[in-house]
Amino acid sequence: MAVAVERHGVVTGAVTTPQGFVAGAVHAGIRKAKLDLAVLRSTVPAVGAGMFTANRVQAAPVLVSKAHLAQAEPQAVVINSGVANAATGKQGELDAVATAAQTAALLDLEPEQVLVLSTGVIGVKLPMPKLIAGLHGIELAADGGAEAAEAILTTDTCPKEALVARGGFAVGGMAKGAGMIHPCLATMLAVVTTDYPLAAGEAPAFLKRAVRESFNRISVDGECSTNDAVVLLANGASGVARTAATDRDFAAALGEVCADLSRQIVMDGEGATVLLEVEVTGAASAGEANAIAKRIATSPLVKTAAFGRDPNWGRILAAAGSAFVSGGFAHVDVDRLTLWMNGVVVFAEGEPTSAEVPLDGPVCTIELDLGLGASAASYLASDLTYDYVKINAEYTT
Amino acid sequence: MAVAVERHGVVTGAVTTPQGFVAGAVHAGIRKAKLDLAVLRSTVPAVGAGMFTANRVQAAPVLVSKAHLAQAEPQAVVINSGVANAATGKQGELDAVATAAQTAALLDLEPEQVLVLSTGVIGVKLPMPKLIAGLHGIELAADGGAEAAEAILTTDTCPKEALVARGGFAVGGMAKGAGMIHPCLATMLAVVTTDYPLAAGEAPAFLKRAVRESFNRISVDGECSTNDAVVLLANGASGVARTAATDRDFAAALGEVCADLSRQIVMDGEGATVLLEVEVTGAASAGEANAIAKRIATSPLVKTAAFGRDPNWGRILAAAGSAFVSGGFAHVDVDRLTLWMNGVVVFAEGEPTSAEVPLDGPVCTIELDLGLGASAASYLASDLTYDYVKINAEYTT
Repeated sequence: MAVAVERHGVVTGAVTTPQGFVAGAVHAGIRKAKLDLAVLRSTVPAVGAGMFTANRVQAAPVLVSKAHLAQAEPQAVVINSGVANAATGKQGELDAVATAAQTAALLDLEPEQVLVLSTGVIGVKLPMPKLIAGLHGIELAADGGAEAAEAILTTDTCPKEALVARGGFAVGGMAKGAGMIHPCLATMLAVVTTDYPLAAGEAPAFLKRAVRESFNRISVDGECSTNDAVVLLANGASGVARTAATDRDFAAALGEVCADLSRQIVMDGEGATVLLEVEVTGAASAGEANAIAKRIATSPLVKTAAFGRDPNWGRILAAAGSAFVSGGFAHVDVDRLTLWMNGVVVFAEGEPTSAEVPLDGPVCTIELDLGLGASAASYLASDLTYDYVKINAEYTT
Repeated sequence: MAVAVERHGVVTGAVTTPQGFVAGAVHAGIRKAKLDLAVLRSTVPAVGAGMFTANRVQAAPVLVSKAHLAQAEPQAVVINSGVANAATGKQGELDAVATAAQTAALLDLEPEQVLVLSTGVIGVKLPMPKLIAGLHGIELAADGGAEAAEAILTTDTCPKEALVARGGFAVGGMAKGAGMIHPCLATMLAVVTTDYPLAAGEAPAFLKRAVRESFNRISVDGECSTNDAVVLLANGASGVARTAATDRDFAAALGEVCADLSRQIVMDGEGATVLLEVEVTGAASAGEANAIAKRIATSPLVKTAAFGRDPNWGRILAAAGSAFVSGGFAHVDVDRLTLWMNGVVVFAEGEPTSAEVPLDGPVCTIELDLGLGASAASYLASDLTYDYVKINAEYTT
């Protein structure tokens, strides 16, 4: 087993820490002067799962990976940053297919056993000669996870890795985030590996449960990308004996890794200076709780106030009152609302309090009790800052 | 009839240009060193209508004005800026009622004949002694419309007035906009007057039609305020003889005034530097056309790209593909999409073109044909800029 290194309290090499995984990356020249192409594979037969964006405009690698997952258990993933290969027409699909085929040939796999993930600018085609040449230069190693985690980044300011190792098996993950982040049934780009043994067809249910409570609960800017994807590869190389108890341990570890990566993505959201933890309780239904939490987490006015360290809680109520659900706005009765910011009650049962809210830390908690029912939902979000505007006003040009 | 003055090509005094309307404003001290309290009334019996925010958290003046409209035809409007009187509990409602009652007493009207509109910070109570003292200081005059248009502004950088006078009658309007603008069935703060004769109960239908195609089609930041309102007062003082033809003329004039004010609001959106004109055609249904146009008009990535004068059209497709409607995302088939920016085709039937897009002007048109049906929708929006963040990070503190 490769050993994950903790550097400044951050795990590195997480995806190759579970046994039987190797990875590597190169600078293929898709981006300037940065690792931009990574390959990860299991060295023993694995099973796996993938969840993808619900956007109606899906990138070519998403379409190709979904098709491959329908045909075979995935054994390897090839990932490039810099170009999303989305809205690239027929050529884009051919390029994604060729990327998988070339990777499969180098790894002695079938093309259908390779998943392709891309992230970067939409509407630009992959520089295939560079990419193919880059693939030939990648050396896979049991300590290659850190390189891979570096290669998949775009406007991220740091790699995102997470690891849970206990009970004889490990779950490791890496992700890229930064912008265009607001999952819709699917998620952003993340790869999770484990040496826990799963049988063919079992991975999707485990992944779905973990994603629902992690990647599907975060928002940087309310945008849903064309390329969002999370992939799980499980190869059983740990050799642990499976029981109902170890299955629960694995599900918990997978959930922790996904939650850890999600939190890292939001904290490194484009231009982010504050982590907003939004919790809605007392909703009439789970759907309404989720809609209200999401509405608060995506409100430009709530997010700019957080950036300004401004306890302008009226904007939170205004957002809560305009959360769209089927048939109109979610139920809110202002006379039953109680709102806390950083633990301080600022509005209780229809009346404002005049409490002072301390807002100087890197985290701002927003807890809203609707007083209508028993449903709850939570969201993590970043604030809206000058740097978010700067990064996105200057991204392609 | 008071004469509206055109200054730098902009109408001033529009709401008192129709015959039989007077207005006035003072600095009551709710805001610092700026007119902040206005009264507008008809000097002859009028009929009227109001449309209000659909937000579940409704400001006290919205609740009170709705109740008053249900009881009587409105004859006057009192408007303050600086404090929204929203989320202010029981005292907020009592304050709105007292504001109407005091205004009615001064004008020799019944309280129910007065509508109350407020705009400003949420969660702060009205300084009633200042407001009442201010009311006593207001002098109503036939040339007071410009003062009133000034007094209702918050973070707006200029007054918003519009006027259509033809066929023997006039329609004048004033509005405030700037931020927290994204109407949901209702609209932002606007007052429209006319000396066209309408009978009791006729005003709502005329207003609804005009608002649907104007105030309900604009977005600055996707936010839906607690205080949005548009009010129409019609006093018949022009004395024109009504026919089906003059009714059509009036409806057209009312539509033009509302559209003119809407456009002014977006162009003066908080921090705005570009006006985005979004037009979606070829949708499967009107609801889907509207959802997609709205999604594009509210996308932070589309809006930051516009600010950066960056022809990053992939973000427009990504937004179009993730437009929420009941039951999921609106239908989009990427192979049928055609996208124009400033008149240049950048994507046609599933394939990107490599056309250059000129993006140097103050307007950016985005035309997206879905190729699926016959429904269309349009939206006006502003870009997302440093100044939007600055204004909203610093608004209350």
